[in-house]
Formats: sequence, C-alpha cells, structure tokens
Amino acid sequence: MNKLFISLIMCCFAIPFSLASASDTPELFSTSQLQIAEKLRDNALINSKAWSIVESLTTEVGPRMGGSKGDPRAVLWAEKKFKELDFDVIQKEPVTFPTWIRGKESAQIVSPYQQNLVITALGNSIATPDKGLEGEIVQFNSIDELREVDASKVKGKIVFISKKMPRFRDGHGYGETVGGRSAGATEASKKGAIAILIRSVGTDSNRLAHTGNMSYKDGVKPIPAAALSNPDADLMLNMLKRNKPVVVNMMLSSSAGEEYTSYTVIGEITGSTKPDEVVLLGAHLDSWDLGTGAIDDGAGVAIVMAAAKLIKEMPEKPKRTIRVVLFANEEQGLFGGKEYARAHRDELRKHIVGVESDFGAGKIWKFSTKFKLSALHVTKQIHSVLEPLGIEMGNNKASGGPDIIHSRKAGMAVATLSQDGIDYFDYHHTANDTLDKIDPESLSQNVAAYAAFSWLMAELEGDVGFFPPEE
Amino acid sequence: MNKLFISLIMCCFAIPFSLASASDTPELFSTSQLQIAEKLRDNALINSKAWSIVESLTTEVGPRMGGSKGDPRAVLWAEKKFKELDFDVIQKEPVTFPTWIRGKESAQIVSPYQQNLVITALGNSIATPDKGLEGEIVQFNSIDELREVDASKVKGKIVFISKKMPRFRDGHGYGETVGGRSAGATEASKKGAIAILIRSVGTDSNRLAHTGNMSYKDGVKPIPAAALSNPDADLMLNMLKRNKPVVVNMMLSSSAGEEYTSYTVIGEITGSTKPDEVVLLGAHLDSWDLGTGAIDDGAGVAIVMAAAKLIKEMPEKPKRTIRVVLFANEEQGLFGGKEYARAHRDELRKHIVGVESDFGAGKIWKFSTKFKLSALHVTKQIHSVLEPLGIEMGNNKASGGPDIIHSRKAGMAVATLSQDGIDYFDYHHTANDTLDKIDPESLSQNVAAYAAFSWLMAELEGDVGFFPPEE
Repeated sequence: MNKLFISLIMCCFAIPFSLASASDTPELFSTSQLQIAEKLRDNALINSKAWSIVESLTTEVGPRMGGSKGDPRAVLWAEKKFKELDFDVIQKEPVTFPTWIRGKESAQIVSPYQQNLVITALGNSIATPDKGLEGEIVQFNSIDELREVDASKVKGKIVFISKKMPRFRDGHGYGETVGGRSAGATEASKKGAIAILIRSVGTDSNRLAHTGNMSYKDGVKPIPAAALSNPDADLMLNMLKRNKPVVVNMMLSSSAGEEYTSYTVIGEITGSTKPDEVVLLGAHLDSWDLGTGAIDDGAGVAIVMAAAKLIKEMPEKPKRTIRVVLFANEEQGLFGGKEYARAHRDELRKHIVGVESDFGAGKIWKFSTKFKLSALHVTKQIHSVLEPLGIEMGNNKASGGPDIIHSRKAGMAVATLSQDGIDYFDYHHTANDTLDKIDPESLSQNVAAYAAFSWLMAELEGDVGFFPPEE
Repeated sequence: MNKLFISLIMCCFAIPFSLASASDTPELFSTSQLQIAEKLRDNALINSKAWSIVESLTTEVGPRMGGSKGDPRAVLWAEKKFKELDFDVIQKEPVTFPTWIRGKESAQIVSPYQQNLVITALGNSIATPDKGLEGEIVQFNSIDELREVDASKVKGKIVFISKKMPRFRDGHGYGETVGGRSAGATEASKKGAIAILIRSVGTDSNRLAHTGNMSYKDGVKPIPAAALSNPDADLMLNMLKRNKPVVVNMMLSSSAGEEYTSYTVIGEITGSTKPDEVVLLGAHLDSWDLGTGAIDDGAGVAIVMAAAKLIKEMPEKPKRTIRVVLFANEEQGLFGGKEYARAHRDELRKHIVGVESDFGAGKIWKFSTKFKLSALHVTKQIHSVLEPLGIEMGNNKASGGPDIIHSRKAGMAVATLSQDGIDYFDYHHTANDTLDKIDPESLSQNVAAYAAFSWLMAELEGDVGFFPPEE
C-alpha cells in the first residue's frame, strides 16, 4: 500500500492497521486458553503477592516524589523486587524532569477571628516571602466565576476557589473540579491576585489538604498556590458569611530544584514464540510526598507486578512478552509516560495492547477497550472470564491510564479495567494515602483481572489493532 | 436528726437524703407537665439554636485549650452568647490551673528505612532536647506487657505501645486503651526508657494523631511522650516485622507555662417558685488545641445552651432554676468541675440533678439515672417523653459526665443521656474535630431530650435524692 492510500484510510475511516496477522480478524480463543485464564484468575484470588508487594513498597520506601530522596530508593526497590520475583528481563530507562521541593507551609486567618488553617502547597507553586504574605480573601465558587469577574475585585487579594468535588464511583468529579488547582493560579494572577487558595480537590472531610500539580501559563507572573483541607474551606466560608473582611497570612517555602534523571523500571516475562510482541502492564512508581503512596500508585505497582508473576509461575509460558512498566514521575507531568512513548515509538506497533492500573485498589467493575472493530468478538470472550469477578462490559472508547496516553495517542490499542473509586479521592494526594486504605481482597480481585486479561492478550492469534496517531 | 444518726444511715443503708419535699416520694408529673415537655421536645426538633451556637463557637473562637489564647476568647464568647440568648443571670467563676504549651513536634524513622512519622505531643509532656532524641524502639502490645517486662529490655530505648482502641457505640474501648496514654510515660520511665510513643487512642485510620492528657507519677523522671497516628503505628509495626532495629528520632518543644486563671461561665433561666433550687446542665467550654473543638465539646455547649433557651422561650416559666454551666479546662484535669464542686459545696443539696453533654453530637439512645429508689417511678414518666426520640431506658447507675463527677461524688443526683459514640473516637482530640463532623439532625435530637428532661426536673414536686459522699 502506498502512503496516500494509507492516509486516505486513516482520514476517512480511521480503520486501524493490522499488527502481525495476515488476516484482520483475530482468532477466537480456544477452550484451553480460556481455561488457563480462568485458572490464573482463580489462583490470583487466593494466592496473589500483591499485598506483600505494596506493603514492601510503602514500608521500605514510602513517599517517592519525582526527584526527592525517595525517588532513587524506589528505583532500587523496583529492580530488587523484579529480581526477587524472578522476572526474565529487568531494565531501567532514564527519564529527566525539573524538580520541585515542598518546604514549609502554614497559614492562618488573621481577622476577623484568628484561626490556624491546614494547607498544603500545590506542586510547582512558588514560595511566598519568608515571613509569608498577607491579604484579604476574595472567594469564588469556581474558576469560571473567577474568569468572569472584573480584575478590580481581585487585585491585591488572595483568591479562594471553594468548588467542592462531588463523589462518584468513576471519579468523574475530579475532572469537573481540578481546573481550579491546575489553572487557578494563572487566572488569579492575570487579574492581579497575590496568591491563591483552593478547596482541596477531594471528597473527604478530613483535616488533611490534597496536593497535586499546577502550572503557570507563559507570560503570567507566578503567585503562590496552596490547597486548604475541606474542613478549613468550610471554616473559611463560615468566616466569610460574617460579611467582614477575612484576612489570611500564608507562608510557603517551596522552591524549584535541579533537573533530575530518574528511571522508568521495566520487568518482563519473555514470550515463548513472539518475544518481540508486547503486552504492556503499566503503573507509576513515583508518588506524592505527603503519604506513603499506597493507593497512588503503590496498589497499581503491586497489581501489575503480581499479575505478571502469576503468569511467570504457570507451566504454560505466554506466547508474547508480558512487560510490566513502572513509569517514572507521573505526578508532576506524565514524564515517564511521555518518554516511554518517545523512546519506544518504533516498537509501539509491536505492543499488542497497553493497560494501566492507577486508580487505587477498589474492585474492578468494568472492562473497556479501544480495539479495532474486527477484534471485538474476542473482547466478549475475555469478558466471559472477567465476569465472575463482578466485572461488566464497557464500551470500545477506553482511554487507558495516564502513563499510556502518549503511547495510545501514537496508535497503541488499550484496555481499561475500571476500579471502584468511590473513596479514592478521600485519600488521593494526601498524607492519608497509606497502606491501611487498601483492602487485600479487592487488591486480589484486581490481580485476578489483570492476570487473566494479560494472559489472553499474550496468547491471542492476531491483533486488536494499531490506530492512526491522535492529534 | 443528729449527726450520728445521719452517719449511721449513710454507712449502713446509703439511703439518700430528701432534698426539699417532706415526703420521700416525689409526685408523679401531671398530664399538663408532660404535655409541655412533649411540646418542648417537638419544638427542639424543628427550632433549636444549637447548630448556630456551635457554628459560632467553632468559627469565632475555634481551639480554646486551657490557658491558651483561645481560652479568654471562649470565655468572652460564652458571656456574649448567654446575653444574646437572653439568659436571666450570667456569671463567671474563676478556675486556676497550671498550663502547658504544645510547641513543635516531629518524628522520623531513621533506620532501617527512613520515613517521616505523624505524631502529636501528649498534654503535659516535657520537651525533648532541641535537636530531638534518638533511640531504638521497643514495642509492647499494651501497658500491662510493659509493666511485666524486665527493665533491661527497656533501658535507653523509646517505648512504643501499640494497643489499638476497639470501636463501640458507648465508647468503652476508650477506658480499655487510655491507660497507655495517661500512665505509659511513668511506667516506661521507671524502666529507664528515654521516651514513649503510643498508638493514638482513637478508632480512625486517618493520618492525624490524637492528643490527650498524661501525667508523671511523683518521683519518676519525666520523659517525652507523644502519640502516633494510627497509620503511622501500623507503619511502625510493619517496620518492626523486618527484625532489624528500628531507630526513631523525635522532637517535641512543649513546655510548662505559667499558672492561669480562666472561668467557668454560667447562664441561668431563673426558676419561678423555687429559684434557689437548680437543675444543672453541664458541658465544657475548653477544647484541645488541634481541632476547633466541635464535637469535644462545642456540641455539648450548644446542646445545653439551646435546651435552656427553648425553656426560656416557653410561656410557662420553670419552677426551679435551669443552670447551664460551661466548665473551664476539663481536658487537662477536670479543673472546672472540681472547682465547681468545691465552690458550691454548700449549695449542692439544692441541685436537684446534674446532667452533662460531653460525648459529641451523636443521637441519644439511652437515658440513665442515679436517683433514689423512691423516685424511680418518675423516671418512667420522663422516659415516656424521651422514648419517641428513640431513647431506651437505662439503669439507675448513671455516672453523669466528667465535669459533674465531683459534684456527684459529693451527693448530687445525676442523669446520663447517652449519645451514640460509634464515630466519636475517630475525631476525638485531633485536628479533625471540626464542625462538619456534627449532624444537625442528631444535634437537634439531643436538644429535644435535654429540654424535655430539664423542664420536667425543674417542675418535679419532690426530689430524686441526695447521696452520701462517695469515697
């Protein structure tokens, strides 16, 4: 086929390329293949190593923010753990990124009624002056309200965005709320604000603030940015109801650090007959600094490592390679995921599918794909193995996880095993992200789904597609 | 009656004195009295001011530890609020106590795996050296285990008591666990420990440590004492499982302050025909310093103030005086309660009953008394008014609340309106003790019970007893 033809097909029909098979339609799984997947699934429920893996990571490493002291410890831990688990190939790939150092953080309402506030700096925020900065609060219900207001109402003040994140199983309240965190400082600065405080992007009512990344748009003067815990945001609103000026003093000593090179750590179970074809199981190795990174993303690390380990222990070797990729620095800008897509761009067509676990340790309730249409008959078979785990069939619009977005955009087929995230945002990006938040039974259910899915994808005769690059 | 006779009766039969009535048996309430109580109850459910009171206290004062900056602000607040609510008599009574200043607090595991720990100093703890102190952890499952161990195992180490508080509706797990907090430092010091860390006495799994009072036995060398949050206690246990020495560095800069005189603030609705006889409704005005003192004991303050206010608003005045007593400094040693019993010792016989709200804002589920036996027929009538609120009848062994223990021990009859405390110890003595933990509907149910009960006790013809002093 010539290039023009390919382009035409891509533009008009978005029909994916065939990966390895001459036929465009993959073969149905055999009964024996499905039975092995079922065995893997059932074995995972009683015999997964996931709990011990995440216990080890949170105990022996703990917080591991990109570029922090915990970062190289996490890399060493991952290499050692892959070795312990007897993976066939272990390697690490460099990922370079700018770093950020949290420093100290404190705030208090100075008037009308003095009270301390629990805050945490947002990742990438600049510092305040050493002694803090003081300003009157101007409150907005959302970033949209801030965008619409006249700059004269904001100039010289501390913006407070009080938007509350709603709770949903699929976590879609996050997307509705996170704009205040990521872009609030830019919008506030454009109107002359001296700092910004946001209500934590979280569904809990604990006095622990949620951190998370933010950035300043080019050309905008950076201003300090922090999150209030939810009870502190309530307190601020109650204080504002008195119709007296609310003055806050806030102090952040955060700073930009040196550029740092960390590593995405990879462990493989080598395929028996198609070792150069890859089933990618992803999670991210880094975490925020406040908790021990149990649900974000120690659980994901444990799930994908344990799933691959179960496959390794089977008497039947998988045909394709199972590649567990523990991405570097997801939290501060998807650095590991971007770099993987770049470094492996020529090899991505050999990635039959990518799947990532990065939404805690709640039970998986839905299986979605982004497969070529001619492969959807095999998703039904895969689902028949997952269904006894309480997993329903989703659509064919899966987005994968954050670290495989860039590989998906380059064409890789993906699946999503959606976890129940009803309480995920109670703990996400807080000091409360600790081991006790993980339910071992739910964790094993995750491993069961990942192991069965990965096995089948490694065995599949044919492929599930490779797509035209997304814009 | 001569003194000997009185003593004889006291010793042999513990028959309580009659308070004001010639007959020992109080009269049954009239239908009209019960109807007024029912009206009060039902009115409270839709029209109580309790929420606005606790919102005001937590917003306008917030933390108010005895002797801290918040203490005089709370006293002023209480006087002003009683005035706003149109109480007939408002007064304050001095209470003097030693003070304690928290200072800074931090800890980290130094080896085998470096991790920060969330701790909080226990009230009354001494400081560590400025740069902290470092020692190996020696762990005990309980204070009893510590008591039994040979001193050589403890000498020079940091004791860690890991006992976990169990969850019960009536909070009895607290009593089973709190010994490690109050007496642990003494026991550890006796065996040569250099410091003590306890698992927080709390039922939650939040990364917020629970403070609370402790003391050193005379003659024992004081050592620094702090609580670990529950997830940090779990982390410590997981670290210890590795069978390598766990070394911790901890820093507390707490100190003893000056002696301070605060005030118990009292507001009264004066009785119409027996103004010198008192129905005492208690709560404590102080709080710990970490939260805003919403459930401990802003809720109690709001419940008793709002209940008395509803009685004040009735067209029918109560016969006896309703005295709302907001005790000073309960948290650091029941100072307000002790002083009240001392200062009012000659008047206690005129206290027909005392009742205190100091267990959060959960719904009341049980009504108990410590009344003379000949008065128990009226408790059945009172219960008939409380029962529609979902309140069952308890026994006649009520202990009152912490601030009225000393008055009870001096002879005062008491009642207990037991609250559902299933989640009370999730938040107790932590930064998480904030307004959002109070359910407005449950708060109103409390007010309903307190208002109805107080009204009936103010109306009762006869008394419910005055008891021989307890040892």
